[in-house]
Amino acid sequence: MDLATVIGLVLSLGLVAAAIVTGGSPVVFISVPSLLIVVGGTIGATMVNYPLDKILGTVGVLKKTFFSSLESPADIIEKFMDYANRARREGILSLEPVIKQLDDFYLRKGLQLTVDGLEPQTIQEILETEIAYLEARHEVGAEISATLGMFAPAMGMIGTVIGLVQMLQTMDDPSSIGPAMAVALITTFYGAVLANLVFNPMAGKLKTRSKEEVLLKEMVMQGILSISKGENPRIIEEKLSSFLPPRDRKQEVG
Amino acid sequence: MDLATVIGLVLSLGLVAAAIVTGGSPVVFISVPSLLIVVGGTIGATMVNYPLDKILGTVGVLKKTFFSSLESPADIIEKFMDYANRARREGILSLEPVIKQLDDFYLRKGLQLTVDGLEPQTIQEILETEIAYLEARHEVGAEISATLGMFAPAMGMIGTVIGLVQMLQTMDDPSSIGPAMAVALITTFYGAVLANLVFNPMAGKLKTRSKEEVLLKEMVMQGILSISKGENPRIIEEKLSSFLPPRDRKQEVG
Amino acid sequence: MDLATVIGLVLSLGLVAAAIVTGGSPVVFISVPSLLIVVGGTIGATMVNYPLDKILGTVGVLKKTFFSSLESPADIIEKFMDYANRARREGILSLEPVIKQLDDFYLRKGLQLTVDGLEPQTIQEILETEIAYLEARHEVGAEISATLGMFAPAMGMIGTVIGLVQMLQTMDDPSSIGPAMAVALITTFYGAVLANLVFNPMAGKLKTRSKEEVLLKEMVMQGILSISKGENPRIIEEKLSSFLPPRDRKQEVG
Amino acid sequence: MDLATVIGLVLSLGLVAAAIVTGGSPVVFISVPSLLIVVGGTIGATMVNYPLDKILGTVGVLKKTFFSSLESPADIIEKFMDYANRARREGILSLEPVIKQLDDFYLRKGLQLTVDGLEPQTIQEILETEIAYLEARHEVGAEISATLGMFAPAMGMIGTVIGLVQMLQTMDDPSSIGPAMAVALITTFYGAVLANLVFNPMAGKLKTRSKEEVLLKEMVMQGILSISKGENPRIIEEKLSSFLPPRDRKQEVG
Amino acid sequence: MDLATVIGLVLSLGLVAAAIVTGGSPVVFISVPSLLIVVGGTIGATMVNYPLDKILGTVGVLKKTFFSSLESPADIIEKFMDYANRARREGILSLEPVIKQLDDFYLRKGLQLTVDGLEPQTIQEILETEIAYLEARHEVGAEISATLGMFAPAMGMIGTVIGLVQMLQTMDDPSSIGPAMAVALITTFYGAVLANLVFNPMAGKLKTRSKEEVLLKEMVMQGILSISKGENPRIIEEKLSSFLPPRDRKQEVG
Repeated sequence: MDLATVIGLVLSLGLVAAAIVTGGSPVVFISVPSLLIVVGGTIGATMVNYPLDKILGTVGVLKKTFFSSLESPADIIEKFMDYANRARREGILSLEPVIKQLDDFYLRKGLQLTVDGLEPQTIQEILETEIAYLEARHEVGAEISATLGMFAPAMGMIGTVIGLVQMLQTMDDPSSIGPAMAVALITTFYGAVLANLVFNPMAGKLKTRSKEEVLLKEMVMQGILSISKGENPRIIEEKLSSFLPPRDRKQEVG
Repeated sequence: MDLATVIGLVLSLGLVAAAIVTGGSPVVFISVPSLLIVVGGTIGATMVNYPLDKILGTVGVLKKTFFSSLESPADIIEKFMDYANRARREGILSLEPVIKQLDDFYLRKGLQLTVDGLEPQTIQEILETEIAYLEARHEVGAEISATLGMFAPAMGMIGTVIGLVQMLQTMDDPSSIGPAMAVALITTFYGAVLANLVFNPMAGKLKTRSKEEVLLKEMVMQGILSISKGENPRIIEEKLSSFLPPRDRKQEVG
Repeated sequence: MDLATVIGLVLSLGLVAAAIVTGGSPVVFISVPSLLIVVGGTIGATMVNYPLDKILGTVGVLKKTFFSSLESPADIIEKFMDYANRARREGILSLEPVIKQLDDFYLRKGLQLTVDGLEPQTIQEILETEIAYLEARHEVGAEISATLGMFAPAMGMIGTVIGLVQMLQTMDDPSSIGPAMAVALITTFYGAVLANLVFNPMAGKLKTRSKEEVLLKEMVMQGILSISKGENPRIIEEKLSSFLPPRDRKQEVG
Repeated sequence: MDLATVIGLVLSLGLVAAAIVTGGSPVVFISVPSLLIVVGGTIGATMVNYPLDKILGTVGVLKKTFFSSLESPADIIEKFMDYANRARREGILSLEPVIKQLDDFYLRKGLQLTVDGLEPQTIQEILETEIAYLEARHEVGAEISATLGMFAPAMGMIGTVIGLVQMLQTMDDPSSIGPAMAVALITTFYGAVLANLVFNPMAGKLKTRSKEEVLLKEMVMQGILSISKGENPRIIEEKLSSFLPPRDRKQEVG
Repeated sequence: MDLATVIGLVLSLGLVAAAIVTGGSPVVFISVPSLLIVVGGTIGATMVNYPLDKILGTVGVLKKTFFSSLESPADIIEKFMDYANRARREGILSLEPVIKQLDDFYLRKGLQLTVDGLEPQTIQEILETEIAYLEARHEVGAEISATLGMFAPAMGMIGTVIGLVQMLQTMDDPSSIGPAMAVALITTFYGAVLANLVFNPMAGKLKTRSKEEVLLKEMVMQGILSISKGENPRIIEEKLSSFLPPRDRKQEVG
């Protein structure tokens, strides 16, 4: 559970709601037709922009990145120290039974290729392709969210222009101008809130999560390649701990 | 047929139409001169921006990417497993008759070069050039669509400024100000709708389609190079399946 | 002669003119002082932005890219097939008399270096430097045009702010407000038209033309290097035709 | 202590305050609800955008980059001249006792790897990974500050739209329009000041500081690699002094 | 002396001044408090954005790039033909006395390293580091100028919002609204003029000058490396003249 997302949404949307309620007569801010044109138009434009399977896939990516707990880098280092020591003592084939029990698809594939005795160069090519396309799939989620955040204010603006044109045509009664403009501005309000408090920040989080996951995959790849080259466990530790901020590292003995 | 494009266009344009009709007096929103200046001006500026053959070529790219059905990556993997096994068992020349029956220009060229015994390095150079210029040709389509999406709101703004200047000159009758401004805003409305509901989302889809096609071509290139290097079918499968999301892969045996 | 440019300019500027004339009283849209501040200010800012020789050089690049007819890629392939066959049959020195008759500076230089027996690696370095700096020189033209397109609306806005400030100071007579604002908006109008119908689209065309020319130079370089390496004419054809869209290629025999 | 930051903030915020006070009745510019919606909404959106630990980590990065004094490049050169001479005269192992006294984590790690006799290639890989992830961690600080600077004006705009809608609904009393609009504009004012005088400039400084620190780390890496390759102290000096502007270099003897 | 800069500034600022004066009552455009908040606030935000030494260093870069006359590329080619011939005839050591008389720091360092007999690879590394950090130092100047150009309109907008809020609070006397808004707009005017006529164009020129200087340094590096590798003077000429536009080259004999 990503608490920051929940707290952030509650905080920003709550403050907007409070500003509306304390200003009196919040009824004007609730308009189903305005919501329909902004949300529906935004979704429509996004459907033209992306293939259906990508849009549906985003729901999965969204859920996964908001709930899944990534492994800690320190655990990865420890795991690889263990593999490396075992491979050194008992030979690379002793990793076979370990592989069978692994959940992580990527790690399992990499170690299996190592045990099968492929060249480190070939393993690196395969694992880098995996990372590149994992990244591409995650980026689509962030891009779709950013696209929603780009079309939402545009739809809000289109809704407001429609409202203004309708109002300007019938300016007979000056007292009706104010309320009509208020109504016209509601789509602008919806578009701005959806873009700035929901879609754009979520696109940002998807991007950050993707970077974190790619970082872990790169650590795992580095570890697998080191084992495949039969490198010294101490060097493996040095290499992998370079990925971490100094304060998260095991006390390194100088 | 790309259903998402159709549904998306119907949804967003339908909601805009509904907002116009339910607001009463939709007549003001239909203005041939306003449409002429926005659409004509946008096309004019785009013709200055791109050579005529590129603009005309975009129509072809558009049709192709909206209707053509790309081969599934799983089929490509299967096909290459078949080629690789055949080449292993019966020699590379046994692929000759297969090549004759291929529709896909790119695959045919790559396999022919392999059968002709060119160096993998040379084949890779040729196929990468093919991909680079295929990508460049597709990008032009997306760029032209994005350029239309950039000039449309600019033309809308120019139309509105013209309308405002004409209105401001003759402000004798206050009651005419409203309707005149309503008319002036129509070009802004057209520009925003064309850009945000049509041109920009279509540019986005062209870009996505191009990426998908390039991905398939890269898989095919990887497969051809593997065959040309005489690689093990199992490694070819590992390499090609790295391009796919895990859920689309054949159950890999660990 | 680039017809698209001419048609595009006539179309978009014509529609703008039509919108002005049909709206009655087009006189207000013609204002020499407004034109002076927008055009003069834009040129002034661009002169601060770029050295004088680059600005003057742009005129040449502009003329060249709008009128010069580029060689067709198919002709280039044919030419290189001819050179390659000749070099194979009669030796590389047999190209000497051909070189003397060439107009294209780039092709002549590349072939001369080949006949002189320089290493392919050295030839590639020299020809790539040529392309890189040709591209840089052409980009300056596109950049200057884009810079004009960036400063024009800014000058239009500055002109409008000046007009507004002058109008607001003397708001004694309400009936003069409208016409005064109309005048103030003229610079915004000029800036928007110049940027969106002239400068920005021309920057776009310069960029496209430059890409086309670079593509041809890269084909020529590829051909020269192939001859210098003594490659098979058939491979040369395969390599060069990779630069073309499939429909422009000679029927390739599979 | 970074004086420029303090002087810059005092100067710009002081001038804004002076403009408010000299205009009379500064009370309207102080509005706790407006401040709450802008600051709270901005923080909320940023919490959705970044994981909590990154946001909290930014505080540390901020403090560190504003107060920590970076080593002077000249000192680094001198230090490495000393290490190189010592390694030449007394052997690489003579650096062991030096390493024990070093505070700088990065330099210590690099020298230790050198003394341990790792290949320069391996040392370079490890140190480059260190720099890459140090840079990534610092960039997050700058990015979060820039994100705050992006959401602050958006929240200001949302607050103003809310205020405008509330005002337009109850336009019965024309004399209340002015003050109500003044209040509505306060959130725009807060958003613009926070973004342009605080968040964006701070993001800029974080980026500059990060570049400086990366430059120093690259100098240190260059020095460590030179020692590890046993290069001549004179060449080490030439290499390291290339990082400095000419005026900061020791008089080089030609 | 860069005439384009002077003419450009006189032209654009002169036209703005003319527009102000011909509009009558130019007094309102001169407002010391408005100038103070725009200029002071812009400088303040820039001081938060960049370290003090970088800001002060920009003054030097500015002066240098506006006045210093760069060597002509043709002179550089001639010089290197001379060095190459001398090195061929009398040995590389014969360049010693030449080096002593050189003013250009970069050329002197490169030739000295060559005479000292360093490997071309090492010389290239050192000279490339020099160019990279020269470029970085120059870019800072252009970036700071662009940053001033980004904050100036923001400060103008903040000043205008302050003025609007103050005006809206006291709308008792309708006749005072116009002049008050005129005053509020002055900061917008100052911000737009400073950004578009001064800071942004100067940032552009700094960038162009830096590119030119880097181009010359790359030519010099190419020449030094060629001498260090003992390359043929004819090839050196071919290589160096690739950097020039064809019309600036010595008549090349085909």
